Amino acid sequence: MEYKSDIEIAQEAKMLPIREIAEKIGIGEETLEPYGRTKAKVDINHLKDQPRNGKLILVTAINPTPAGEGKTTTSVGLSDALSKLGKKTVLCLREPSLGPVFGVKGGAAGGGYSQVVPMEDINLHFTGDFHAIGAANNLLAAMLDNHIQQGNVLDIDTRQIVWRRAVDMNDRQLRNIVCGLGGKANGVPREDGFDITVASEIMAVLCLSTSLKDLKERLARMVIAYTRDGKPVTASDLRAEGAMTALLKDALKPNLVQTLEHTPAFIHGGPFANIAHGCNSISATETALKLGDYVVTEAGFGADLGAEKFLDIKCRAGGFAPNAVVVVATVRALKHHGGVPKAELNNENLEGLEKGLPNLLQHVENITKVFGLPCVVAINAFPMDTKAELNLVEERCKALGVNVALSEVWAKGGAGGKALAEEVLKLCDQPSQFTYCYEAEDSIADKINAIATKIYHADGVAFTAGAKKQMDKLAALGYDKLPICMAKTQYSFSDDASLLGSPRDFTVTVRNVKVSAGAGFIVALTGDIMTMPGLPKVPSAEKIDVDENGMISGLF
Amino acid sequence: MEYKSDIEIAQEAKMLPIREIAEKIGIGEETLEPYGRTKAKVDINHLKDQPRNGKLILVTAINPTPAGEGKTTTSVGLSDALSKLGKKTVLCLREPSLGPVFGVKGGAAGGGYSQVVPMEDINLHFTGDFHAIGAANNLLAAMLDNHIQQGNVLDIDTRQIVWRRAVDMNDRQLRNIVCGLGGKANGVPREDGFDITVASEIMAVLCLSTSLKDLKERLARMVIAYTRDGKPVTASDLRAEGAMTALLKDALKPNLVQTLEHTPAFIHGGPFANIAHGCNSISATETALKLGDYVVTEAGFGADLGAEKFLDIKCRAGGFAPNAVVVVATVRALKHHGGVPKAELNNENLEGLEKGLPNLLQHVENITKVFGLPCVVAINAFPMDTKAELNLVEERCKALGVNVALSEVWAKGGAGGKALAEEVLKLCDQPSQFTYCYEAEDSIADKINAIATKIYHADGVAFTAGAKKQMDKLAALGYDKLPICMAKTQYSFSDDASLLGSPRDFTVTVRNVKVSAGAGFIVALTGDIMTMPGLPKVPSAEKIDVDENGMISGLF
Repeated sequence: MEYKSDIEIAQEAKMLPIREIAEKIGIGEETLEPYGRTKAKVDINHLKDQPRNGKLILVTAINPTPAGEGKTTTSVGLSDALSKLGKKTVLCLREPSLGPVFGVKGGAAGGGYSQVVPMEDINLHFTGDFHAIGAANNLLAAMLDNHIQQGNVLDIDTRQIVWRRAVDMNDRQLRNIVCGLGGKANGVPREDGFDITVASEIMAVLCLSTSLKDLKERLARMVIAYTRDGKPVTASDLRAEGAMTALLKDALKPNLVQTLEHTPAFIHGGPFANIAHGCNSISATETALKLGDYVVTEAGFGADLGAEKFLDIKCRAGGFAPNAVVVVATVRALKHHGGVPKAELNNENLEGLEKGLPNLLQHVENITKVFGLPCVVAINAFPMDTKAELNLVEERCKALGVNVALSEVWAKGGAGGKALAEEVLKLCDQPSQFTYCYEAEDSIADKINAIATKIYHADGVAFTAGAKKQMDKLAALGYDKLPICMAKTQYSFSDDASLLGSPRDFTVTVRNVKVSAGAGFIVALTGDIMTMPGLPKVPSAEKIDVDENGMISGLF
Repeated sequence: MEYKSDIEIAQEAKMLPIREIAEKIGIGEETLEPYGRTKAKVDINHLKDQPRNGKLILVTAINPTPAGEGKTTTSVGLSDALSKLGKKTVLCLREPSLGPVFGVKGGAAGGGYSQVVPMEDINLHFTGDFHAIGAANNLLAAMLDNHIQQGNVLDIDTRQIVWRRAVDMNDRQLRNIVCGLGGKANGVPREDGFDITVASEIMAVLCLSTSLKDLKERLARMVIAYTRDGKPVTASDLRAEGAMTALLKDALKPNLVQTLEHTPAFIHGGPFANIAHGCNSISATETALKLGDYVVTEAGFGADLGAEKFLDIKCRAGGFAPNAVVVVATVRALKHHGGVPKAELNNENLEGLEKGLPNLLQHVENITKVFGLPCVVAINAFPMDTKAELNLVEERCKALGVNVALSEVWAKGGAGGKALAEEVLKLCDQPSQFTYCYEAEDSIADKINAIATKIYHADGVAFTAGAKKQMDKLAALGYDKLPICMAKTQYSFSDDASLLGSPRDFTVTVRNVKVSAGAGFIVALTGDIMTMPGLPKVPSAEKIDVDENGMISGLF
């Protein structure tokens, strides 16, 4: 059987005018700012006093594997399924980054018959949010170096500048540079580097801001360097926050698009899921909760990173409490966690599946026991899954008191998500007892320890000497009462990517601790995190094309 | 008397919905792509077969001085004056660059009561065109370095890479860098640097492209490096043109806004006026000529650079022939050209004015005699201009057979441009004999010589040994049949910024010659051209702010 590519399905879609999508959830002309015919921004100021009554559904997953899980596809399909059941549903997703589109990855707007559209626009410049973030990031960098060039009144130590430049491109050549070369008129030579725009703290700031005022205050607090005697220098020391906010004022407004089945979808913000919290913006989620009865959203990577940060960072900052959690898995991915080689994943293998199941079950238990939230498992169906395999997953989940629903949204759209949607609706009617994994007031070490033992099931945390010194410094500077943002491999519960399933008897090593004072979290680094990807031998850019009529091909 | 600032006037303006502006010139719903309520892009594909019947009016100026000329303000005011006289008028201007907004310059959308609005949007991200150009520029750079990193099959010489990276920011720190540091996984160390986005060849390419197909072909031809045996490497050698065109497909569509008096205005494209040709896009001018009866446009810097390139490069590429040319001057600026010190420019000084007048008269004569076009002088009025001074200007112009009109559009909007508009209408009814300054088929040296002797009135051109070698190389590679883009100081007819007025007895020295094969011109450099500005001691960014409701202040 010949499958259509995602872009073919997306381009065949008959989109409704964005005005009609907006009307479905009561967004009037005065609140809608169209960008073309099928995209719009929503002026959140107009909705300031509206109550938020929607039920919040988080879609998360097992630890990612090369076999693929389909979290975004499931989120899209679930929202279409809820719409089909007559529920006023709004979807909230992250915006894809431009750089990776030209690398290996292709697009990131769902797949098959569960996509958000217009997928080409969403994957390219969309409404310009990321460009605005890049511009604000680089304005601050230019003002910082200009301050030094013009006399350095703040006594900034050029060896302790922590603010890097940004570009929304996979460009390894810019990871480490020396800038300011060429003599007196051309700056002060120093080491520097570029991150991909989504790794900029400004991305996290934008996603966690609740208003323009909050945005400006967060930008002002960002630490960009240290003085020669070790004091933090912030963006407000350079008087940069006003101009940066001016650059970001439209980027803060959520972007409205639609699914293939015309469910309203906010696609807004996309911070890294390791050095940042990996969720769409608070402003989008909050707007959705004001306008919809059911709001479906997702978090990055597996539940150990994505859901934990969604719950401990985003929900804390936005005052959200989810009503239900969906954990996505595939039979193939579970077999991978059970040690089955990639070439054999398509064959029935109950033993391998049994071995991999603890990964799923551990995530489910974390959600229900640690966070106190109702949970359902969604098995993203593949044609090669066998009845026996599906039964095994269901049986093991039931033993934990958790239902399993087969999701066929990739192949069938919303119609394939009916069983899942019905489970989710049941969960939303249950009472829940949402609790954070730790209290923000705890010490940095205690907070990291809580995550490592309660979520990762580690024996404990080893802090390097450098990390200890940093924790003391942050505490002395008053930056210790913030939530924790773990930067850890997404492939394992542990900090060792090769430990699949649900490992035990390990220790997590924290090598460094940094403050993102604007975003409002402390990043705990368990290893080197790549903040600037590279292009592969044959970049997908070589296949992307556009014809005379503006029709794009080669995005997938 | 207290004057309102430009941003105050702009923010008080009652803008019409962009749909109504579009309707004025027959742009229907299916052709209009709104960006918010007061900006839109126009789908040029829908207008492909429409004839272009409008009359084209070029606004240019004397050599710029610190006293200011007001070319953009005059262009806006003239188009409003023509509208007031009942003519279906369309204005075509360049888009301002983001970087300089945070430096010294402030906004660039006209002034006083002759502005285009929404000025904050136009001066900040607008519809994202420049970000798209930056992304395409940096995708190509990343693909280039990735090619080298992955084995360098094309044998690119890392010392002969001519493609630089781009950022739309005044950031001197990035002028000269070393990138690719940090070992084998992080690229190949080499010298590199960033230009401000408007200096990217892609900006010139976008502005000179007549269709998406033409755009892709031009991008493919761009020379980005040379191999170790000296052969040019183009963007198409990296198979980058498809993805770049995909990034630029919306940027090619002209942006529609309005003047304070609701005249439709296309603001589209903004290439440098030294290393590039300094005019708005062909696609905007062409669209305007299809939709309006009168089209007012401007070119960068003074007429020696701006008008010459408009006529020899843009008109040649687009098949345009202007019907009238307006040369803008101020009495103050003419006195500056006559050697009057800045502090005394506000005092009547007929002797100083007399001495400065040859600058204006030379430009006028070039327009009428070399290019064969009807011309009118617009004196952009200042309150301190005296009757005797204005009379002197008028008298000297009349002696050349050229009329002078006083323009008071800064203070009065369109009503202040009535006299100028009436002169322009008269000129548009006259026959004209448009001829280029040189033929593209001539040799590079002959073409440069023609510009230097006929337009600048130099005795001749001295080519350095390096320039001669380069001309031979370009001829050998078949790049010599392109028009010339002079990179020269804008402050003088000569290549010496201090030679004011209308100098004689000088030679122009061409130090280097480069091909912009995608843009389709040969750049002749008479000195070092700064392609990345810096920020001043107190950047205007420090004063820019935005309040809780999104209202911006400090842009001027």
